[in-house]
Amino acid sequence: MLSEKSVRIFLDELASSAPAPGGGSAAALAAAIGAALVSMVANLTVGKKDYTHVQDDIQRILKRSEELRHKCLELLEGDVAAYTEVSLAYKMPRDTEEQKAARSAAIQKALKTATAVPMELAEACVEILNLCPESAEKGNVRAVSDVGVGALMAEAALRAAALNVLINLGSIKDESFVQQTRARLNALLEGKAELKEKILKDVEAKL
Amino acid sequence: MLSEKSVRIFLDELASSAPAPGGGSAAALAAAIGAALVSMVANLTVGKKDYTHVQDDIQRILKRSEELRHKCLELLEGDVAAYTEVSLAYKMPRDTEEQKAARSAAIQKALKTATAVPMELAEACVEILNLCPESAEKGNVRAVSDVGVGALMAEAALRAAALNVLINLGSIKDESFVQQTRARLNALLEGKAELKEKILKDVEAKL
Repeated sequence: MLSEKSVRIFLDELASSAPAPGGGSAAALAAAIGAALVSMVANLTVGKKDYTHVQDDIQRILKRSEELRHKCLELLEGDVAAYTEVSLAYKMPRDTEEQKAARSAAIQKALKTATAVPMELAEACVEILNLCPESAEKGNVRAVSDVGVGALMAEAALRAAALNVLINLGSIKDESFVQQTRARLNALLEGKAELKEKILKDVEAKL
Repeated sequence: MLSEKSVRIFLDELASSAPAPGGGSAAALAAAIGAALVSMVANLTVGKKDYTHVQDDIQRILKRSEELRHKCLELLEGDVAAYTEVSLAYKMPRDTEEQKAARSAAIQKALKTATAVPMELAEACVEILNLCPESAEKGNVRAVSDVGVGALMAEAALRAAALNVLINLGSIKDESFVQQTRARLNALLEGKAELKEKILKDVEAKL
């Protein structure tokens, strides 16, 4: 499992020419960092007497940010599995017409799986980003800059996930799948750069 | 050393209420991911026959991206050390006037160190980002989306480093230090969001 490797080794493998981990796992890790920072701010607010009136909200945020953090780590591993499936499909024999058809079908199926992983990541990133305004408003003010860093990570990971969706869509022949996925992706991206800037503005006002 | 911990444990500790790692280390890790992706694209281009004419440029990019990746990992550790120094200074005794003065001086000194770490990180992020246009232009086109992810990570880490600078500046009393640092920071930030968007546009055109 990639997430059991040390940070140093993970980065060494990311930097290498080895096929995995790549940009997909990098995006998932950035999203997990974003979720972890939302959790950290919540954990620094739980049980603090100046924040008695927001304890229920903070507990709700913390529960969701932790679920999202673990989801992102699953997607980090999922990206490698999906990439492997695509690579294996491309290596299938193509000597006969039957083999060519089987290979092509396997490639198309693998590419759809490889698209589903960054789409799920994009959805998780939007949820992490959506936790940030309330975290900045109600969380421990001494950690408010960490909400800002969390929002930056989640939004960058969202854009990165979008690139990973687009690169797969380019090879998918099912036009209706491509159009539907692109429409869902655009809906996820819409307004998120502005939301990130709004969060940063609110954070900077509290620094 | 934080970077010797597994990715999973690093994220567990980031999410916890423990004082370190925090947003500073998170930003350094995101920057290291960005540098690693630039290295990956270079490593996927080195020695490839379709890229013979750019080998010197790619080797130069790779040398610099690897130096920057290791620099970012050093800053990940450096952020924890700087945070510890600030915490220890705040815990100094303040019963007498002499103690108050010594504590205040130690806090101010520690805050300047704690500002230097994210400033160095911001400088590294700008350098990583500046490697991306040439990587997208000359690197292996099959990995061009990874240049885009690298640029997203570097720019988000730059903004995150800026937040970590600003939070420390807020407690520093040396007005000339504050003004000079703020001016340097603004110079580092200027035009980088636009540069990131330009890189992403070039990357998407090649997908």
